[in-house]
Amino acid sequence: MSPRSQAPLSVAIVGTGLVGAELISQLLSLPSPSPFKLVSLSTSTKTVFAPEGLKITPQTWLSTLKSSSEQPDLLALPDKLSVLERAVFVDNTASQDVANLYPEFLKKGVHVVTPNKKAFSGSQKLYDDILKASKEGSARWLNESTVGAGLPVVQTLKDMVASGDKIKKIEGVFSGTMSYIFNEFSTANPGGPAFSSVVRIAREKGYTEPHPGDDLNGADVARKLAILARSIPSLQSALPEGYTSVSTRSLVPDALASVSSGTDFVDRLPEFDTEFEKLQRQAREEGAVLRFVGVVDVEKGVVKADLEKYPTSHPFATSLGGSDNIIMFHTERYSPRPLIIQGAGAGAAVTAMGVMSDLLKLA
Amino acid sequence: MSPRSQAPLSVAIVGTGLVGAELISQLLSLPSPSPFKLVSLSTSTKTVFAPEGLKITPQTWLSTLKSSSEQPDLLALPDKLSVLERAVFVDNTASQDVANLYPEFLKKGVHVVTPNKKAFSGSQKLYDDILKASKEGSARWLNESTVGAGLPVVQTLKDMVASGDKIKKIEGVFSGTMSYIFNEFSTANPGGPAFSSVVRIAREKGYTEPHPGDDLNGADVARKLAILARSIPSLQSALPEGYTSVSTRSLVPDALASVSSGTDFVDRLPEFDTEFEKLQRQAREEGAVLRFVGVVDVEKGVVKADLEKYPTSHPFATSLGGSDNIIMFHTERYSPRPLIIQGAGAGAAVTAMGVMSDLLKLA
Repeated sequence: MSPRSQAPLSVAIVGTGLVGAELISQLLSLPSPSPFKLVSLSTSTKTVFAPEGLKITPQTWLSTLKSSSEQPDLLALPDKLSVLERAVFVDNTASQDVANLYPEFLKKGVHVVTPNKKAFSGSQKLYDDILKASKEGSARWLNESTVGAGLPVVQTLKDMVASGDKIKKIEGVFSGTMSYIFNEFSTANPGGPAFSSVVRIAREKGYTEPHPGDDLNGADVARKLAILARSIPSLQSALPEGYTSVSTRSLVPDALASVSSGTDFVDRLPEFDTEFEKLQRQAREEGAVLRFVGVVDVEKGVVKADLEKYPTSHPFATSLGGSDNIIMFHTERYSPRPLIIQGAGAGAAVTAMGVMSDLLKLA
Repeated sequence: MSPRSQAPLSVAIVGTGLVGAELISQLLSLPSPSPFKLVSLSTSTKTVFAPEGLKITPQTWLSTLKSSSEQPDLLALPDKLSVLERAVFVDNTASQDVANLYPEFLKKGVHVVTPNKKAFSGSQKLYDDILKASKEGSARWLNESTVGAGLPVVQTLKDMVASGDKIKKIEGVFSGTMSYIFNEFSTANPGGPAFSSVVRIAREKGYTEPHPGDDLNGADVARKLAILARSIPSLQSALPEGYTSVSTRSLVPDALASVSSGTDFVDRLPEFDTEFEKLQRQAREEGAVLRFVGVVDVEKGVVKADLEKYPTSHPFATSLGGSDNIIMFHTERYSPRPLIIQGAGAGAAVTAMGVMSDLLKLA
C-alpha cells in the first residue's frame, strides 16, 4: 500500500509583526501545489478565518486583515482548528498569554510551531502541560527558531538525544546583541571603544531592544538555555522556574536597574565604563577576550549565562563577527572536537525560515 | 479530528558494516514504544525478514543474521515492503547496484534513507528516475548523511531552498581525510612534516581508504558537491554525469595513477614532496594555507573540487582541526556573513546518527 498523498496542512497564524509578515510572505510564495493552506491570520485586534483557505496573496493579506471587522478569539481557536483534517497553530508573538494556550491546541490534535520562547522557558508546569497535551492529542510542538533563529540548533540537539548520543556540554554565544557588543568591545588589541559607546551604537543600529537593559540582563540567553536544557533528558526538570532558575549574570549595573527609559539608560551607562574596561584589561592580560555566553554543562548539572574569558585562539574569539550566534555541542560522539553551528541568530527572514523548516517537517 | 497515532515504520536494512551495525544498535536501543519496527536485515550473502518485526536485540541480531540460510533477493524486496503499511528501505552499503534499485522502492511507496552517495552523485538519469519515482509512489528519499555524516548539512540546504532563500555559494572542506592531511601539512609555520609523511600517518591511523589515492583523487568531494548542487533548483540538471561532471583536481601524481597497491603508493609518494612543498611555500608567502575544498558557486554556475589558498585568518585556517568538515552557506539571508556548520564529517557513530535523524523525520 503506498502512502497516501496527505491533505494540505491548515495553518493558523497569530502575530503579524516582522517575523509574522515575513512568514506569511514565505508561505504565500511557495510553488504550487503548496503543502499548506492558510486558514487564519490574527493580530491582537483583528482576525480572518476561512476553513477552506484564505483568498490572499503576498500583496493583499495585510489589507484583507485590516479590513476585517472580526475580533480575534484565541480561546475558541483550538476547537475551530481541531475539526480540520490537519492543522497547525503558529504563534509569532512574544506573548505569555498566547504561550499559555499551547496545551489547549495540542490536546485537541492541533500542532504548534513557534519562535516564541515563553512557553518552553517559563514554569515547569506549563512545560509539563505541553508535553502531556502533545501526547494526549498526538500533536507535535516544534520550536526550532526559539534558539539561533534559522540555525539548525534545536533539531540537531533533539536528533542527538533521540539517536542515543550523550550530551556533555553545550556552550555558545546565543544573543546576537551580546555577540555584537563583545565582538566590538573585547578584542585582542587595546584602544577600542568604550563599552557604553558600543551599546549606544548597537542601539542606534537597531541591534538592541528599545531598552538595552533588556538585552544586557541576560534573560534572553537564559531563556534559550532553558529550552536547550529541557531537551536533555537528565535536565528536563532541572529548572523548576524555567529561565529564572538559570544562573544568570546581569550586565545591567545595579544603580541603573530602575532606569525605565532606554535613552536615559544609555546616557548614564558611561559612568560604568571603567568597570567594563577593567574586566576587559584583565582578560587581555591573560591573552583572552570577553564573551557573554550560555553554558549547559550536563555532567556538572550547571546551566548558566555569564561573562567568560576565552583565549584569542578560541573560535568564540577568532570566528565570531557581526552579531553571529555560535553554538558548540560537546557530546559522546562529537568528542574531543565539538559540532559547531554559527551564523546570524536573529532577524525576521532567518527566524521565519526556522518556522518554515518546522512547518515543512509537519507537511 | 485529532491526528491518528501512526503505525510503527517498518525498516529494512541492507548493509551491516560499521555504519549498518551502529545503526542497528541505535535503532534497537530506542526507548519503547519505538516508532520503528525492524523487519529485515541483509548482507550480500544473508538475509532475515519478518513482516511483523524481527525478534532481535543489540546482542542477538548478528548471530540471528549469520545463522539464517535465506539468501538476499533485493529485487524482490520492494514488493515485499510495499504491502506493509509504512516502510523504509535503508541502504548502508556503498554499492552502485543497490543504489540503482531506489526507484523501484520509491515507486512502490517505500521510502529510502541512505548514507550511500552513489545514487545522487552519478548519472542524471538515475537521479531523475529517483525524483520521478518518489512523486509516483508518494515516497520520500532522505540522504542527510551523504554529506558531513551527522552534521545537519543537507536538510539545512533543503530548508533554505524550500523556504525561498537564494543560495549564492557553498564552500567547504568536505573530506575528513583531506581535512586532516592539510590541517597537518599546511600551517602558517614553516618546518612542518612532508606531504608524504602526513599521508602515511593518516593511512596508519585509518583516516584514509586502504589506497590513499581514493581520497586524494577528490572523487569523494566531487560526489558530495554533486549531491548539494542538485538540491539547488538552478543546478538540478547542471551535472549530467554527476560527480564526473564536477571540475575536480586530483592530488594523485600522474606518475602514480596506475599504482594499484596502497602500500606501494605511499612508498613512492615522497618522490613528489618537493612539488607539494612548493605549493605550500607559495601559500605561506601570501599569508595563506592550503585547503582541499569543494565549491558550489551558484551565481557563476561553477562546481569544483580544488586545492585553494585561504588567509591564515580564515575559518578554514583558524577553526579547523583534526579531521573536521566545515561548510559555509552564503545565501541571500545569510549575508554578508555565512551560516557555518563544522564538526566530524565521518565515522560510524555520527554517520548512523545522520541516518537516524532521517528515519525520525519519517516516523
